[in-house]
Amino acid sequence: MTESTRRSPAETMARLSLEEKASLTSGRDFWSTEAVPRENVPSIMLTDGPHGVRKQTGGGDHLGLNASVPATCFPPAVALGCSFDPDLLERVGRALGEEAQALQVGVLLGPGINIKRSPLCGRNFEYLSEDPLLSGILGTALVRGIQSQGVGASLKHFAVNNQETDRMRVSADVDPRPLHEIYLRGFRRVVREAQPWTVMCSYNRINGVFASRNRWLLTELLREQWGFEGLVVSDWGAVDDRVAALAAGLDLEMPSTGGRTDAQIVAAVRAGELDESLLDTAAIRVLELVDRAVTGADPEASFDADAHHVLAREVAGQCIVLLKNDDDLLPLAPDTRLAVIGELARDPRYQGAGSSRINPTRLDDALDEIRALAANDVAFAAGYAADGSDSAGLVDEAVALARTADVAVVFLGVPAELESEGFDRDDLELPANQTALLDAVVAANPSTVVVLSNGGVVRLSGFADRVPAIVEGWLLGQAGGGAVADVLFGVVNPSGRLAETVPVRLEDTPAFGNFPGELGHVRYGEGLHVGYRWYDARDLDVAFPFGHGLSYTTFGYSDATVDDASGDADLTVRVTVANTGSRAGAEVVQVYVGLPSSSVTRPPRELKGFAKVHLDPGESRRVEIPVRRDDLAYWDTRVDSWIVEGGTYTVEIGASSRDIRQRCTVDVPGDPVRLPLSMDSSIGELLENPAAADILAQAFGALGDAGIDESVLKMASSMPIGRIVGFVPGVSREQIQQLLDAANRA
Amino acid sequence: MTESTRRSPAETMARLSLEEKASLTSGRDFWSTEAVPRENVPSIMLTDGPHGVRKQTGGGDHLGLNASVPATCFPPAVALGCSFDPDLLERVGRALGEEAQALQVGVLLGPGINIKRSPLCGRNFEYLSEDPLLSGILGTALVRGIQSQGVGASLKHFAVNNQETDRMRVSADVDPRPLHEIYLRGFRRVVREAQPWTVMCSYNRINGVFASRNRWLLTELLREQWGFEGLVVSDWGAVDDRVAALAAGLDLEMPSTGGRTDAQIVAAVRAGELDESLLDTAAIRVLELVDRAVTGADPEASFDADAHHVLAREVAGQCIVLLKNDDDLLPLAPDTRLAVIGELARDPRYQGAGSSRINPTRLDDALDEIRALAANDVAFAAGYAADGSDSAGLVDEAVALARTADVAVVFLGVPAELESEGFDRDDLELPANQTALLDAVVAANPSTVVVLSNGGVVRLSGFADRVPAIVEGWLLGQAGGGAVADVLFGVVNPSGRLAETVPVRLEDTPAFGNFPGELGHVRYGEGLHVGYRWYDARDLDVAFPFGHGLSYTTFGYSDATVDDASGDADLTVRVTVANTGSRAGAEVVQVYVGLPSSSVTRPPRELKGFAKVHLDPGESRRVEIPVRRDDLAYWDTRVDSWIVEGGTYTVEIGASSRDIRQRCTVDVPGDPVRLPLSMDSSIGELLENPAAADILAQAFGALGDAGIDESVLKMASSMPIGRIVGFVPGVSREQIQQLLDAANRA
Repeated sequence: MTESTRRSPAETMARLSLEEKASLTSGRDFWSTEAVPRENVPSIMLTDGPHGVRKQTGGGDHLGLNASVPATCFPPAVALGCSFDPDLLERVGRALGEEAQALQVGVLLGPGINIKRSPLCGRNFEYLSEDPLLSGILGTALVRGIQSQGVGASLKHFAVNNQETDRMRVSADVDPRPLHEIYLRGFRRVVREAQPWTVMCSYNRINGVFASRNRWLLTELLREQWGFEGLVVSDWGAVDDRVAALAAGLDLEMPSTGGRTDAQIVAAVRAGELDESLLDTAAIRVLELVDRAVTGADPEASFDADAHHVLAREVAGQCIVLLKNDDDLLPLAPDTRLAVIGELARDPRYQGAGSSRINPTRLDDALDEIRALAANDVAFAAGYAADGSDSAGLVDEAVALARTADVAVVFLGVPAELESEGFDRDDLELPANQTALLDAVVAANPSTVVVLSNGGVVRLSGFADRVPAIVEGWLLGQAGGGAVADVLFGVVNPSGRLAETVPVRLEDTPAFGNFPGELGHVRYGEGLHVGYRWYDARDLDVAFPFGHGLSYTTFGYSDATVDDASGDADLTVRVTVANTGSRAGAEVVQVYVGLPSSSVTRPPRELKGFAKVHLDPGESRRVEIPVRRDDLAYWDTRVDSWIVEGGTYTVEIGASSRDIRQRCTVDVPGDPVRLPLSMDSSIGELLENPAAADILAQAFGALGDAGIDESVLKMASSMPIGRIVGFVPGVSREQIQQLLDAANRA
Repeated sequence: MTESTRRSPAETMARLSLEEKASLTSGRDFWSTEAVPRENVPSIMLTDGPHGVRKQTGGGDHLGLNASVPATCFPPAVALGCSFDPDLLERVGRALGEEAQALQVGVLLGPGINIKRSPLCGRNFEYLSEDPLLSGILGTALVRGIQSQGVGASLKHFAVNNQETDRMRVSADVDPRPLHEIYLRGFRRVVREAQPWTVMCSYNRINGVFASRNRWLLTELLREQWGFEGLVVSDWGAVDDRVAALAAGLDLEMPSTGGRTDAQIVAAVRAGELDESLLDTAAIRVLELVDRAVTGADPEASFDADAHHVLAREVAGQCIVLLKNDDDLLPLAPDTRLAVIGELARDPRYQGAGSSRINPTRLDDALDEIRALAANDVAFAAGYAADGSDSAGLVDEAVALARTADVAVVFLGVPAELESEGFDRDDLELPANQTALLDAVVAANPSTVVVLSNGGVVRLSGFADRVPAIVEGWLLGQAGGGAVADVLFGVVNPSGRLAETVPVRLEDTPAFGNFPGELGHVRYGEGLHVGYRWYDARDLDVAFPFGHGLSYTTFGYSDATVDDASGDADLTVRVTVANTGSRAGAEVVQVYVGLPSSSVTRPPRELKGFAKVHLDPGESRRVEIPVRRDDLAYWDTRVDSWIVEGGTYTVEIGASSRDIRQRCTVDVPGDPVRLPLSMDSSIGELLENPAAADILAQAFGALGDAGIDESVLKMASSMPIGRIVGFVPGVSREQIQQLLDAANRA
């Protein structure tokens, strides 16, 4: 139909029957929305893939099982998070949007920005970080990039979906402050700044209520407080009670239920149990989404698979984290005699399992790419069997090879079958046959570089002190092999930084003992202290801290300043960063903020800004990093609102959360919080109120000899003033009420 | 009135007016119940003091301020807990009961058995342990002892009162399992086994509801489930809403409100808002309590202050914990040239501040008692100022003295003003002037013994590796000075064991970051992992573990066995313990139980039995320790009930939680838990059900090529069966319901 004859969603709505409206609010099949041919409402396709387009050709499934058409497999989120580079992620988003467009996909089901609460979460490879600011900024960039191509994004999994174990039933029991400050903060940022076309609700319950029928979450918070304008789609199979879900703000159930739950909607409306206007609201959002997709669609679109492969390699190179590089063992000179060891060098792990599994357009392995860049022949030994079985023969071969080489490059990683959507890991260990191989190789040749492939953090403390160089490659997508080669030879100067802490051991992790919960509940007992916030608060050693990552050059920091905030203004941190080495490289300048005088619990430092700065050798630049006032706020449970506390904030600028190079302080004025004194106010609270303190002094005078002794005050200060009757003879409730009234008027 | 004319409580009740009944359910004044002279209902006195009788003569207060009549100050609970000796505690209870009787006190307000959740809790000195079994067993003994004298005990503070900060408002937010398994378990034991005349409700809220008006706590749990037959009294000033409190099961409000809240009760009954039968229930409980007190009263009673002082010394000697004793520095030979150093040696800290502060009948100090036992003159230097101020002169004097001595005995401790009811500590540190003194003394004379006086745990890691001998004296009551001398010279062979872990540092403690909460809530985020349960689960080093304590002799363990449990029987652990040294002494044989195969979270080991065994040199004995089946149960949130899980339990027998000497296993049959399968049951749960597994296999067959691949199953196993529709074509909800019905019938 031509533009002139297209009806607006509202016009179309008016022409639909109750049954048609209900049918719009659930899928036609596994991947598509329902059409209404009579009214020229087409079906659009929503399909998986935060880091690529997984468009299935045959049977639909959500487990990554059946075939899909080839698409570029970009680095998964675990790697992207380490780029600390929103511009780069926006480019990835644009490329994803192009491919979706070319494959006639209307909505790409990503990005996933859930917080990595435990390193055991099986789906951590699909998430960006343990930090909500980093997740929020990078998630915003991805959404912007995808949507710039006329394709919708789906921000997921909303919310508090931080494990796979029992994911379709478990209740994430989390207190208000961590809920808002850690688990929802990134979502809020992306919604407010990028307006994703859709938000995908999660499977789990939150404090007992399924996300799919959580009106507070889907309507009050998401729409009324954050201003979300798009559509809420269920995670596939997340709807537990369709009528309750629709009433709560779940607009589109996926996948199809063959009309079963549509009929429930119709029946509920007919029975007067569901207001038809709620159905209308959901249906019109579906029509609006379809309209956006149709408007954005470009039937002529195609994508350049070669160019995207090149981009995938570039991106992967920016995500690799050089954890350790003693004595500048890296980069390798082209003519280094190399022994490449490890099955993963020729049979790469480059993505995780489950709904995000992409059918790549091509696949590079590190071994071939190293050979392409090396000046000499590169010998290879598998070193271990991919299936984890022991093979002394493979180890012997590898050791013999390592002995003959200048440098041994050992590829280790987590086997694919251990990292997947749908279940969590049990431990942080590399397979025993791999660590045994490494031990043997290091013993034979101390000049050993370890290259890691893993979707979730692994324990490195077993060998990190004995291996001079460690390259954390995470999962790098289809062109990761080339990117690893680029970094090893210095074609790319590594600039990735850890978006999550590498702990010394599982027992040190914040959620240990509270993960993955039991009997339908998981208690987020660590509260605000997630990731580096925990290790810093408890002063625990870590293997490698959040924000850490080395470069082949070095950087100096000087002259940090922070603007005094006045009124509601944001802060601006300025610092001069210099490339003090001999290679061009990029530094991720990180700004952490704390408030030691806070009246509420605060992590020692929280990331509040960062910038990735490319500098030539000898170059220096004045870097300006905004710190938003909004990002300083904590969630105040007394007023159910974000509050910026007044005080002297510490501003730490550094190369990682534990490599602080410059420190400043800044006085920030607080938001007013007016809480009237009441009978429940404590004596301590009254004493902080000048008007109330006077009469209190009289009341204490009645205690007689003891007077207002300091130790008495300390003991009594937590007593609610209303309870003082009975303890202080001669003081009546009426007198206390008069005092309170007077103080509240003052 | 004579026995023959006394009316029963029920008879009296029938003769009282509404106003009289209401008046009975609150205090007459600060310490007494209301009388009804017309009906010959006397007033009885309830008064403070878990470790002594604090009967005030003048103005009443609850802060330990005004004078009270002299009574024996026995060691506070912090020390008593370390005796691990219920017989000893029953003797203490009897003595307390005697003194209460002699002072015409009807109810003694103790014992306090709250769990030491954080070492910072300001009132930990009034509590027994971090372990609920130990608290429950020792609490039972104290109640039995007190009540054997015709005086009532008051089990407090019920419940979950584990901090002083904001204690009158804060909500202890705690999940069901730690609530029952850690915080309520000890109370349950004491109530069921000793039937205290009264239980005192705590100030705080529990999951949002004040204890004083928590019907679930005071009626459903305490009375209906546990069978409590006594009276519930409020902590002084704990009543927030009198009518709601009475309806919830709070029988007696203390102290008096001058009739104000009685009038509320009367008005509520008249207005039909409060069922008069609820008031009758409370009033008759007051009458019954008065009747018990009157019946138990012995107007002729007196007590032998000298004998009780002797008992207090004996008890204190059994509570002292010898933490460290390198090269058998202790016991001291009588002719050792001693330097006694530290103000606390002559000005002892022997109890905490607040409502439990006793006016002692006499007070021994360690310096005099050491001098009494020493063969030579004993030199003394104060070493530090009690007020914490620096004094180089005092240090110099002490160092000079230490140089001249064979052994320096340095008394250190927490200043009185830092440990009190009413507020919590901020850290675990000894005063800087004391540790500076110690450093100087140790440098001058390595043969240094540290004697500690502290109500809460202090950090010892600053010096524990440099000092050869450490005596943990806690707070030892009025005769503690003699007990310390007894232990130092070996008159008493120390047999106390730590009832709480001494951590390396505050940051390692379980509640760190979640203590003391904020804005009215404290989250018990560590869940079950309180005390040694935490350090063991996270495999953290500790300074001294739970259960630790040395002796001047040594003990050997052999031939441990545990009876196979059949049916509902309790277990019996048997082990041969031998005194392998040359002195008579007592060993605390500890039994820890674990269930590695548990389907729910379990601490690695939990104390489930113990016995204190006195053995002469060379003597050995077959020790029999019962482990109750009931104590193996966990609280199952699916059925809201205690459940013993079937499986192979590990039984560890040792001299501390980290000094396990013998290990056994025992197969315990489980309690049946029948949970029907439903649409919410997961595929994994169905697969564990043989009847259900069959049809499931068919359903998965419909997935086509993928079949029931193991990885697919792993991914899908957490999916509720009801959601499978839409994912598996051709499977209907009706079919699934048939499968479930069939499986549930099987």
